Amino acid sequence: MPELRQEPITKKWVIIATERSKRPSDFPVRPEKRKGGSCPFCVGNESKTPPEITAYRKEGTQTDSPGWWVRVVPNLFPALKSGEEGPQNQNFYVTRPGLGAHEVLIESPDHNSTLEEHSLDQARDIFQMWVDRYRAVMEQEDIKYVQIFKNEGSIAGASLEHPHSQLIATPLVPPFIAEELKGAKEYHTEQGHCIYCDMIAHEIEEGERVVAEKQDFISFCPYASRFPFETWIMPKRHQASFGSLDSGQLQSLTEIVQETMQKITGSLNNPPYNMVLHSAPSGEDDAPYYHWHLEVLPRLTIVAGFEWGTGIIINPTPPESAAKYLRETSVQNNRAKEELVWQQIH
Amino acid sequence: MPELRQEPITKKWVIIATERSKRPSDFPVRPEKRKGGSCPFCVGNESKTPPEITAYRKEGTQTDSPGWWVRVVPNLFPALKSGEEGPQNQNFYVTRPGLGAHEVLIESPDHNSTLEEHSLDQARDIFQMWVDRYRAVMEQEDIKYVQIFKNEGSIAGASLEHPHSQLIATPLVPPFIAEELKGAKEYHTEQGHCIYCDMIAHEIEEGERVVAEKQDFISFCPYASRFPFETWIMPKRHQASFGSLDSGQLQSLTEIVQETMQKITGSLNNPPYNMVLHSAPSGEDDAPYYHWHLEVLPRLTIVAGFEWGTGIIINPTPPESAAKYLRETSVQNNRAKEELVWQQIH
Repeated sequence: MPELRQEPITKKWVIIATERSKRPSDFPVRPEKRKGGSCPFCVGNESKTPPEITAYRKEGTQTDSPGWWVRVVPNLFPALKSGEEGPQNQNFYVTRPGLGAHEVLIESPDHNSTLEEHSLDQARDIFQMWVDRYRAVMEQEDIKYVQIFKNEGSIAGASLEHPHSQLIATPLVPPFIAEELKGAKEYHTEQGHCIYCDMIAHEIEEGERVVAEKQDFISFCPYASRFPFETWIMPKRHQASFGSLDSGQLQSLTEIVQETMQKITGSLNNPPYNMVLHSAPSGEDDAPYYHWHLEVLPRLTIVAGFEWGTGIIINPTPPESAAKYLRETSVQNNRAKEELVWQQIH
Repeated sequence: MPELRQEPITKKWVIIATERSKRPSDFPVRPEKRKGGSCPFCVGNESKTPPEITAYRKEGTQTDSPGWWVRVVPNLFPALKSGEEGPQNQNFYVTRPGLGAHEVLIESPDHNSTLEEHSLDQARDIFQMWVDRYRAVMEQEDIKYVQIFKNEGSIAGASLEHPHSQLIATPLVPPFIAEELKGAKEYHTEQGHCIYCDMIAHEIEEGERVVAEKQDFISFCPYASRFPFETWIMPKRHQASFGSLDSGQLQSLTEIVQETMQKITGSLNNPPYNMVLHSAPSGEDDAPYYHWHLEVLPRLTIVAGFEWGTGIIINPTPPESAAKYLRETSVQNNRAKEELVWQQIH
């Protein structure tokens, strides 16, 4: 019998379509061969991007030249950008100027590397850069929210194959975050707890949806998963804003992301995925009701007419099955090559 | 400068990304060749589907045998289905049994036909069947909403290529419909009008987003379009429920859908698309604040990490440009073959 499951924070429903139940081998992922070529994000091609915003680079090397291992540049085709106020307006409709920021975080000089195969040092520096940029952009004028995300694979929206993540800052609190805040505030008012903290306790107690656990973080397949093998990564300690991450947590975050992604990419044959940060908006850094987290959304199914009509997503893989599979997938050690790259750079 | 535009009913925001602005030729659509073969929806293969629910068929022909021109069968892998109550809820989480219905409306015996190329008679009978099934399923026990939709092309989620649409009935009012109802009610309370009626008047007056107009219907690219070339088709007369469609309107609906789809498929090289009905839920058939409509969503862009994180969709094509292009695309007469098929059947 299919099940309707309610996401406890936003109260949205998903259908766990047991009649369509699918195992990993039922998803025909065709991993894309990386072509390389004249990639603007490759080392040596620094002049092909807009001028660098910041980078972690060898001492003595010049901006916009080789020597970096993580590099941040403005998006050449920004979805939102800083500038003069445009026309507000309107008669019947409401518009506001698309003010904000859009940055690209180039995760490695190496075109063919992946987040889960990086050395631990390289991966930690990627997340350190996420934190640095999150904090810096959050302080810019009129920014209400900073969305960091990663698209991997063309099906998941990556238009360039070189490993990178993106940051888009918005002048308003996005609707999905507003919905989470509303639900989390209501729960906090009624129960006196953070709903995410309670969810973590519940998941650890039940155990069946847990994928991995480290000192400061847990990853699990959420009860109302929208996507097959959807996995959330959450700090165990209450923390509303990603900007509050400390250095001890950074190490633990890196470890759990790499382990979780090794399990997902290993068991699903390098699927396309989106990785999406959820964090408190401007001014709610210390909210007792909100809890930042990362959502990993493998893109194995297609969101089609039913979903666009109703907002109810059909997921053919129960999260309990997904989590069991991921738990039992052993983590490969693909780091030898990456360690070498790291040593060459430093 | 990019623009943030607010959808006036649900208050959701989209980004019209002028820096990424795209014309039809910028979208690399690769039309899929239909393969045919052992298609369960083809005439002669009636035994390959679950038993027929209903069909329009030649007098004297048997159920589950040839002679039909529109045929409805249960979905072999239903997302929701009728049955016994499953386990309700839970401890921390809320579940309900996936009760409902899931039907497939096979739009033609001909594997290679399309909605826009059908004879007017055939296309009208497809929409007549939509109305018939909408009314019949809405009367079933515990059904709160009936979602009819059509996925065209594998990128848009069609797993079978034979032309068909689907009906999924849900035991709750879906979130997107609930959001529309909430916004529309608020507007009606404040302004005393149906917001959709006001939108139609506004679009006709401005004209720049109108795609086509018939006696009883208008099609236009909505101000806060989420997708390039997104087009809404709306009855001009106030009408909350698709189930209230009368026979005069049926003719006009068929004409505007075919003309609009001929413009979209003709100018975009047969793009994948979702077509999604929005109608009043059970018990609100005569609501003065709601207004049923069809949304056509060409799937030329990818909904990726930013959209899944924020709920704000980035659309690179301003609806004013899309509508101008569609208006200026002449409608081809591809009906000769279809007229012949129609005559052979009847």
